[in-house]
Amino acid sequence: MRSMRAIILTIGDELTGGHTVDTNASYLAGRIGELGIKVSRIETVGDDTEVIARQLLIALEAADLILLTGGLGSTTDDITKEAVALATGRKMVIDPGLRSELEARLKSYRTATPAVLDSLAGIPEGSEIIQNPVGAAAGLFIKQGDARIFVMPGVPSEMEAVFVDGVLPILGRLPRPEITVTRVVKTTGMSESAIAGRLEPLIGKIQARLGYLPRPEGVELRLTATGPGETVDRLLSESTGIIVAALGERVYSTKGEDIHFVLGRMLIDRGLTIAVAESCTGGLIGHLLTQVPGISSVLDRAVVAYSNGAKTDSLGVPAALIEEHGAVSAEVAQAMARGVRDRAGTDIGLSTTGIAGPGGGTQEKPVGLVHFGLAGPDGSDTSRMVFRGSREIVKIRAAVHGLDLVRCRLLGTEAGAGG
Amino acid sequence: MRSMRAIILTIGDELTGGHTVDTNASYLAGRIGELGIKVSRIETVGDDTEVIARQLLIALEAADLILLTGGLGSTTDDITKEAVALATGRKMVIDPGLRSELEARLKSYRTATPAVLDSLAGIPEGSEIIQNPVGAAAGLFIKQGDARIFVMPGVPSEMEAVFVDGVLPILGRLPRPEITVTRVVKTTGMSESAIAGRLEPLIGKIQARLGYLPRPEGVELRLTATGPGETVDRLLSESTGIIVAALGERVYSTKGEDIHFVLGRMLIDRGLTIAVAESCTGGLIGHLLTQVPGISSVLDRAVVAYSNGAKTDSLGVPAALIEEHGAVSAEVAQAMARGVRDRAGTDIGLSTTGIAGPGGGTQEKPVGLVHFGLAGPDGSDTSRMVFRGSREIVKIRAAVHGLDLVRCRLLGTEAGAGG
Repeated sequence: MRSMRAIILTIGDELTGGHTVDTNASYLAGRIGELGIKVSRIETVGDDTEVIARQLLIALEAADLILLTGGLGSTTDDITKEAVALATGRKMVIDPGLRSELEARLKSYRTATPAVLDSLAGIPEGSEIIQNPVGAAAGLFIKQGDARIFVMPGVPSEMEAVFVDGVLPILGRLPRPEITVTRVVKTTGMSESAIAGRLEPLIGKIQARLGYLPRPEGVELRLTATGPGETVDRLLSESTGIIVAALGERVYSTKGEDIHFVLGRMLIDRGLTIAVAESCTGGLIGHLLTQVPGISSVLDRAVVAYSNGAKTDSLGVPAALIEEHGAVSAEVAQAMARGVRDRAGTDIGLSTTGIAGPGGGTQEKPVGLVHFGLAGPDGSDTSRMVFRGSREIVKIRAAVHGLDLVRCRLLGTEAGAGG
Repeated sequence: MRSMRAIILTIGDELTGGHTVDTNASYLAGRIGELGIKVSRIETVGDDTEVIARQLLIALEAADLILLTGGLGSTTDDITKEAVALATGRKMVIDPGLRSELEARLKSYRTATPAVLDSLAGIPEGSEIIQNPVGAAAGLFIKQGDARIFVMPGVPSEMEAVFVDGVLPILGRLPRPEITVTRVVKTTGMSESAIAGRLEPLIGKIQARLGYLPRPEGVELRLTATGPGETVDRLLSESTGIIVAALGERVYSTKGEDIHFVLGRMLIDRGLTIAVAESCTGGLIGHLLTQVPGISSVLDRAVVAYSNGAKTDSLGVPAALIEEHGAVSAEVAQAMARGVRDRAGTDIGLSTTGIAGPGGGTQEKPVGLVHFGLAGPDGSDTSRMVFRGSREIVKIRAAVHGLDLVRCRLLGTEAGAGG
């Protein structure tokens, strides 16, 4: 008995043209992976019926499970269903139930012409329809020999709704003797080679496949094991424990979570309030923290004080201090953190001031230099980092480092050197 | 003579496991597309030497140009070079020049052991080395029969550096009798079906293939044409003109730019200063605007006033106004926009206050409701929208709508209904 093998086939000229990042493929791969099903390949092709049909035929030879997304609407570039019919040797038929349901749902839309309804209700014969709760393009489930094919819309919110409501329940009922599971351990503040240096002596004890993935926000470690469910769980838990013991507080999640969710939950759980004063990160810290549901109970404000006037006026940083040390300085970072904490009346104040680039750097204050301030009930301190990368990457690294400073303060330890 | 055909092959368990969104594939597809080379397929496989070699062999039969990324480092999961050697029937050799150069560059790193250096300097025999200016894993260029293979690192910043410095110059020298070019026209505030309703009567005049792509921030239109360079340019320019005439100010870019870059440049060019007061968008407007190089000359501040206290204290919104109308109200949106404009002393003040969800909605004020305030020298006004989608999507839609309100004010027109 072996693991089930899946191929994901994403369709769209916007993908092969590079105009869209394929988030559907990673979403589906992640969800399929959680079920213990291995994704052996992801393929992306343009809006071309014959090309789609050919790749689907090839996929049918290699996989038990095929997930298609994209090309399901009613505009002229939506040709996936015809391609599926071609590859599976079925004819296209109009599903009368689906058609009348769509007619009722779309009757207020002037654009729902009979031709559009026929197109939306057309299916390869013998397909099972999967309702789309958030759009007009239904999903499809087709059994072809031993293989199972699922067809989903390409709009990410519709794809997710069809997957969760319709595909997942069917997949959950399939027998899976062996599963392949990956656990993602996230770190920050330590380079890939430094992590490898600590983990290599332990590699014999880690009973899972170990992968390294450096990202702007830190290095991700991926542990993968295959086997019966309970064995996999045990191997991954033991291996994760070894890594956490070796890397200590540089690990901020053993469940693949982003740092803002980890910190946000720590703050909410402890009832600690926070206010942020951002300069070079430009709102990114506020944006990340406000991704966390329920953060409004602890986040008072995030002031993006881009100009010197804003630093003085909205944070109370003395103009003379900026004059003396420059806006990008430890002194100003400290005054920003204290100022936002005082004005907001929160437990914690966090600040960033730096040079995101690409312009504005000098020999003394290069692009990528960021000063951080952290103010709390017991006083305040500052630190500085120089991050490499583009404007966007410097912003990400600085925001994550700032969040990590708060996390480590809450843990009672200090953040390490930048990733 | 026909267009050159490319296949992109991205490698990594983090991709097939769904832990990473494959931004390399879209980056490369976009850059290749700009050269007029059609990407016929993108494939993604895990860190498995035989699988990589097999897919590369298949790709060699179908494409003139193959771009590989990932699996080029010196850790145990980096096996791409061996796979390329296997597929092309070459043996692995150590390049002495590359090895001594790496030895000199990495001598300060304790982790650069002889085994690591051998691994980094190992290449399939006959490969041409492409320098990696930002990392230790060099790129490779291999001519295999009529096909050209480029191998690049997987870390996006390294991949981009190798592509721009090494791959692009080689591709630029290849003869290309026919090119395929796509132009991306970006819209917001109009649904896909409404756009299709306006464009369908004109479809005979649009001499390019037209694709629709709905995104959270609006519908993207893709126009693709194939032919000799000057013909393609003319067809795309004429077609773009027809679309802009039909959709008017709903088009914010005919070059695929994001709205914050378009608005940022308008503000910088006109020397108009702006301040932002965000509640439900949580810093995202500030983050987007601060992606624009040079924005510091016009952006004074972005205040994320999450709590009622922050709205009163840092924006001057009267506590009684919040008490009377609620924080999510047109009155508070107006006071926020005026308050941030007054305090910052800018030309423009923009505000958002709403319910991003998933919790916090009521029948009167549902999840997705957002009030906007826009204050300028001639007075202020407010508007409201109800956006559908997750917390993250509501934030994106609200941020883009807010930026579009400013853009339309600058154009002298009003923003349309939300996308």
